[in-house]
Amino acid sequence: MTDLILTTFDWVPDTPRGYVRDIRVRWALEEAGLSYRVKSVPFGDRNAEHFSHQPFGQVPWLTDGDISIFESGAILLYLGERSDALMPADPRSRIEVIEWLFAALNSVEMASLPWSILMFSGDTEDTSGRKSLDKFLESRLQHLESVLAGREWLAETFSVADILMADVLRLVDRFDGLAGYPACRDYVARATARPSFVKAHADQMAHFAAAD
Amino acid sequence: MTDLILTTFDWVPDTPRGYVRDIRVRWALEEAGLSYRVKSVPFGDRNAEHFSHQPFGQVPWLTDGDISIFESGAILLYLGERSDALMPADPRSRIEVIEWLFAALNSVEMASLPWSILMFSGDTEDTSGRKSLDKFLESRLQHLESVLAGREWLAETFSVADILMADVLRLVDRFDGLAGYPACRDYVARATARPSFVKAHADQMAHFAAAD
Repeated sequence: MTDLILTTFDWVPDTPRGYVRDIRVRWALEEAGLSYRVKSVPFGDRNAEHFSHQPFGQVPWLTDGDISIFESGAILLYLGERSDALMPADPRSRIEVIEWLFAALNSVEMASLPWSILMFSGDTEDTSGRKSLDKFLESRLQHLESVLAGREWLAETFSVADILMADVLRLVDRFDGLAGYPACRDYVARATARPSFVKAHADQMAHFAAAD
Repeated sequence: MTDLILTTFDWVPDTPRGYVRDIRVRWALEEAGLSYRVKSVPFGDRNAEHFSHQPFGQVPWLTDGDISIFESGAILLYLGERSDALMPADPRSRIEVIEWLFAALNSVEMASLPWSILMFSGDTEDTSGRKSLDKFLESRLQHLESVLAGREWLAETFSVADILMADVLRLVDRFDGLAGYPACRDYVARATARPSFVKAHADQMAHFAAAD
């Protein structure tokens, strides 16, 4: 039995609380019923040890014995391979989960995160660039809306793909970007009502509050 | 022996030629020495059959017998599992490749593609949003520059992670976005000098030219 350790920041400002990416890993670990510990690294002073685990100076990373993994997508794929609650073992279902896992990160989040950065920056100017980025996100959400109108989860059963997609979409929802996409909104509500998300979210909030 | 079929558009405008994402799959297939055929779907009229393979109406997708996979990241991971030339089999090296594969798509491309969209849109206005997105990309490239200054490839040997990272970076390079990052630029030059990239690129150019 190895010892899973999730590393995140010791503290973050109020705005990102509840949205720091360790929540994806917490959520997956809770769904799988895997025991784990949480460690902290300084938010303010990111040292060489930090960069040796996460080359972009971000969080989270997961260690499993002497293995260390960064990137929330890579961590969830790693955990998915050890729990049927996160990713079915049969090859066809596994592929379905993996393509949707990538779709969450590289088709939807690649459009939604820059949009969120514009929203955070308070940019309200109607430039050609802004219009292009709005259109990029709209196109992805329109297609996703069609998909989610017809199914409960992205693959046959709830999986790591839903953890990533729901986490990506709830940041859009925070800025009311899902107003025109009721199936996406219902999907986020369905996913975040799961006891594992509720616990993961409460744990992250408590973790950062403890440092105040 | 299954029959690998890569599907891409029948035609695209001049600007994206050489950069359509089927090049990632072509490149991987060439590196692995796997035989494959290329099929086309209409660029102009995307029908229900298209969306059944690629829910966002994009390309490429790969079929392997009755398995169909979309998302270039998912396809490269699938191919990586069947060729040591793309991803080593030993668990520790495999994890290293997978975390960098996700880093290419979810840490670097998530910052670089929106930046490229702004460049394509001709947006030159110095808004707060534009500054935030420029800063987002700069931060990622600065950290990547430190990594690439010290190694030939992202993992121990050339892998699918390099195919994705080099393809992501060469679009930045197209808009001269790597001017301040010599190690990133050298890395792109090193990767795209590989015979498999040269063939993949020529094949994509010829494919679209044939439809003119």
